[in-house]
Amino acid sequence: MPSYIAPTKDMQFILHDVLNITDAGIPGYDDLEPDFTSAILEEAGKISSEVLQPLNVVGDTEGCTFENGVVRTPAGFRDAFEQMKEGGWPGLDMPEEYGGQNMPYVIGTAVGEMFSASNQAFTMYQGLTHGAASAILAHGSDAQKDTYLPNMVACEWTGTMNLTEPHCGTDLGLMRTKAEPQDDGSYKITGQKIFISAGEHDMADNIIHLVLAKITGGPEGIKGVSLFIVPKFLVNEDGSLGARNGVACGKIEEKMGIHGNSTCVMNYDGATGYLLGEEHKGMRAMFTMMNEARLGVGMQGLAQADAAYQNAVEYAKDRLQGRDVTGAKNPDGPADPLIVHPDIRRSLMDQKSFAEGARAFILWGATMIDRAHRAGDKDADGLISLLTPVIKGFLTDEGYDMTIQAQQVYGGHGYIEEWGMSQFTRDARIAMIYEGANGVQALDLVGRKLAQDGGKHVMAFFEMVKSYIKENSGQNDDLDRDFLEPLKAASKDLQAAGMYFMQNGMKNPNNALAGSTDFMHMFGHVCLGLMWAKMGKAAMDALAAGASDASFYETKIATGRYYMARRLPATAMHLSRIQSGADTVMALDAANF
Amino acid sequence: MPSYIAPTKDMQFILHDVLNITDAGIPGYDDLEPDFTSAILEEAGKISSEVLQPLNVVGDTEGCTFENGVVRTPAGFRDAFEQMKEGGWPGLDMPEEYGGQNMPYVIGTAVGEMFSASNQAFTMYQGLTHGAASAILAHGSDAQKDTYLPNMVACEWTGTMNLTEPHCGTDLGLMRTKAEPQDDGSYKITGQKIFISAGEHDMADNIIHLVLAKITGGPEGIKGVSLFIVPKFLVNEDGSLGARNGVACGKIEEKMGIHGNSTCVMNYDGATGYLLGEEHKGMRAMFTMMNEARLGVGMQGLAQADAAYQNAVEYAKDRLQGRDVTGAKNPDGPADPLIVHPDIRRSLMDQKSFAEGARAFILWGATMIDRAHRAGDKDADGLISLLTPVIKGFLTDEGYDMTIQAQQVYGGHGYIEEWGMSQFTRDARIAMIYEGANGVQALDLVGRKLAQDGGKHVMAFFEMVKSYIKENSGQNDDLDRDFLEPLKAASKDLQAAGMYFMQNGMKNPNNALAGSTDFMHMFGHVCLGLMWAKMGKAAMDALAAGASDASFYETKIATGRYYMARRLPATAMHLSRIQSGADTVMALDAANF
Repeated sequence: MPSYIAPTKDMQFILHDVLNITDAGIPGYDDLEPDFTSAILEEAGKISSEVLQPLNVVGDTEGCTFENGVVRTPAGFRDAFEQMKEGGWPGLDMPEEYGGQNMPYVIGTAVGEMFSASNQAFTMYQGLTHGAASAILAHGSDAQKDTYLPNMVACEWTGTMNLTEPHCGTDLGLMRTKAEPQDDGSYKITGQKIFISAGEHDMADNIIHLVLAKITGGPEGIKGVSLFIVPKFLVNEDGSLGARNGVACGKIEEKMGIHGNSTCVMNYDGATGYLLGEEHKGMRAMFTMMNEARLGVGMQGLAQADAAYQNAVEYAKDRLQGRDVTGAKNPDGPADPLIVHPDIRRSLMDQKSFAEGARAFILWGATMIDRAHRAGDKDADGLISLLTPVIKGFLTDEGYDMTIQAQQVYGGHGYIEEWGMSQFTRDARIAMIYEGANGVQALDLVGRKLAQDGGKHVMAFFEMVKSYIKENSGQNDDLDRDFLEPLKAASKDLQAAGMYFMQNGMKNPNNALAGSTDFMHMFGHVCLGLMWAKMGKAAMDALAAGASDASFYETKIATGRYYMARRLPATAMHLSRIQSGADTVMALDAANF
Repeated sequence: MPSYIAPTKDMQFILHDVLNITDAGIPGYDDLEPDFTSAILEEAGKISSEVLQPLNVVGDTEGCTFENGVVRTPAGFRDAFEQMKEGGWPGLDMPEEYGGQNMPYVIGTAVGEMFSASNQAFTMYQGLTHGAASAILAHGSDAQKDTYLPNMVACEWTGTMNLTEPHCGTDLGLMRTKAEPQDDGSYKITGQKIFISAGEHDMADNIIHLVLAKITGGPEGIKGVSLFIVPKFLVNEDGSLGARNGVACGKIEEKMGIHGNSTCVMNYDGATGYLLGEEHKGMRAMFTMMNEARLGVGMQGLAQADAAYQNAVEYAKDRLQGRDVTGAKNPDGPADPLIVHPDIRRSLMDQKSFAEGARAFILWGATMIDRAHRAGDKDADGLISLLTPVIKGFLTDEGYDMTIQAQQVYGGHGYIEEWGMSQFTRDARIAMIYEGANGVQALDLVGRKLAQDGGKHVMAFFEMVKSYIKENSGQNDDLDRDFLEPLKAASKDLQAAGMYFMQNGMKNPNNALAGSTDFMHMFGHVCLGLMWAKMGKAAMDALAAGASDASFYETKIATGRYYMARRLPATAMHLSRIQSGADTVMALDAANF
């Protein structure tokens, strides 16, 4: 059975040596001294390894069950959920006035990675609650906040997001669920929603559904969509639970993975709903959840990759098979461990350099959210808006590939369920799909985010990379050669791709869209390249300052060199694909496929 | 539920327009006129679509069961197996003297793709039998052939290959299963084998296990391994079944996919075995099976990719979601079909151009086997030996990625089991692992095959590509620009990688091995590039000759142009990785992972 050890040391390195969070000038960051963050991370790591991780295989094997409208979670989930609540983890980065601990988002993100890595299906119950609570926090009335948030922040009540219908996923303008205004200001919600994660289960007293629906008589299409709060049990004025609402789970889906999370068909049959935010502005309100969810999903890509990687390393050290071609490394044993073989190393280095780079990327992104929310920094808001589809799309595509590589290290033992490596891949697979399939992320990036605010944010990104290279060049040959020069080349490729889109997308938008997935991947590589340059420099600085744990920093530099030499040059391939334009992509009539 | 239509037209194009098999000068090919091969392919396509494909989901859902030593296959498998036997399909390319139809291997390969595509788990029962029969044919005594082959060719008895033990997969020198010589010339086989596909089941009267074991007192390690025939039921002199042998299934594995095939732990407890081939030369005999099996597994990569692609195309045409950015294509409907969107097209073109290129590659490879076996052509034998790891490794890595892309087209519907897209990915996943994990294929290619016979075969390959380009250049600008020039560039990349290995692998073999997987992928791309150049030219020739079905040939050219423009340039990325050498790959101490 797999194990998981939280990467607390690596997180501390990123938070303090690379991002220097205590000096970041973001409200609430002043308290984040290394000893303080270390205490939180160690505690979160403990519950991840000891409580959540052992339930991961249980969740996969047992799955959820559905009988007479009741969904039961796998054995042990309820107890674990109680422990998470007792520890105050669900409200870690929620406001104190609703019972949270008001920690910055960056801390919630670091902790969230551990929870996802140790048990993604389980962690989704509180993750979705967090997203729904954030939407109420951003768009709800004071009364709505008072009614729902304290219980949601505590995870006494959980939350969901209801977008998809059988005939519409991405294209929500096709939505059929309707909301009929009632005399008391509420609405009657009727329709069917599918793929509702945590839609029904046995771990909370109430479930607060956020539901997109069209108010009857409103505008057609996406402009007529509003967001509603639809509690499973109505809430009385005194806060106690009232009547069961007209919403029920119709079935749960058989899925490829995340079996421990209930994926529900939810039937709304004149259910009482309350408008959240403004009429017909449902998409705006929903995007508060969606953006947070997309970052969270990007993190899942990293989390599954890291959990799978950790186990692949252990297997590669333990399993004796074949001999090192340069001479036996375990001469007294029957064979050398797998880890001596160059192709196994290549695979492990792919995984390691991805996971550590992705971790830095996610935590850096989280600081932008904190900067935007806590310091009202519009530039930070613009930049994270630009990077959100990259974080979601790139990290889940790559993260999935890394779970496949980790599974491959096990050979045939990776394919049988006994070793648990299959679960990492099956769970990671969903992250490429939900919260907007990765093709939609690429479309969002190229079709919307690049041009947002006149292209200001992407220009700022390029400027930032350029400045970073300029400021740090010429001081250290190793840094220049191994980190800054590859970053410069990759960044130039990315700019050339952006230039191609500008010059050719005008006359035919397909010239841009046909390269959208390649662009998203290049962008991701450049971001990880930037993170590795920063980590490489931080590690070199630490060594120069005589850091006691030299081996940690030397390993960091070696891992970064691998990424820059072996992974980052993929940008050139993506650029050549992009520059081949839309012609070959769009050449066929649909009938000829 | 998915459907499958056999690509008979495409196969006919490859066999007759591209490979010109009737003019190939290979014994047995003269009869393969288009009408004749068409009749076979249509008939095989029919049984694939109508009998095997509907059982594919059943096999996945029900799986095999194990109770009291008895393995039961899913409902319907026995009947379908009977139909396959009645149709004479298992013996299609087996010698007539043992009841086969003596068709060339290339025909067996084309038909095999259909069977695998429609039901991989089912087809493995006869596929393994075919491999075991081939080994007996190549290495057995006349008496052994007479005893086993007629029933195996007819699939009245099925076969298995027993290599892996709990502690050894790739490194068979560690094997513990022992064979004790008996006075009557037989051996007593004792040990445990794992991951034995079709090791026990309810579809045949007898199961003929080919088992690797070490004769007691023989040489240490791999040099002491011999191959044995161990029937489940001993065979009496008159050919009737005798006593149950001392071999039993201990359990079947829970796997990620191919649930319809029983993956068994086989326990040999003093079972009677008969030496196949020479003492201590078991690996040589086993490789007769392995090489055939590796080509068959490469074909599985293609087969699953094509089956998944076919369904993704249908979904992309049916599912209405969003609008074509260049103007509505379905203005009277609520939205346009998915297939209008450039990123969906990119994905479908990736899949289509892979599947058709891979099909040509496999069939071309099959002609080499026929040329080697039927015409005794040693050069063809050397070339297919070189290309075997490429076919196995590249086509299964890429084939798997294509099933993932096909699943992705379905969005959330791809993740739930209801639509069947998850099964394609889960079944395809094993092909990257079994018959030698793909890292081992890459090692075989770079560490062994490149230098085989003094590097003669790889030189011959480069010469062949060069000659092809030279002979066909300067006649048609479109062919030159869209096909021959990209092929030339990719081939140069591959040669440069080979040169790098020669120059740097001498001083440190890790410089070659660290790039082995990249080299295998480059090699695969160059092979598919060569195939597309040949197909592009054949299609242009057909159009120039006024072929009636212009649309088929135009589509072929457009699909080839896509591959050459979008996929083939990956060789440059692989080359840059290879040329970065082993330093970054091998930098870390094992403890620092």
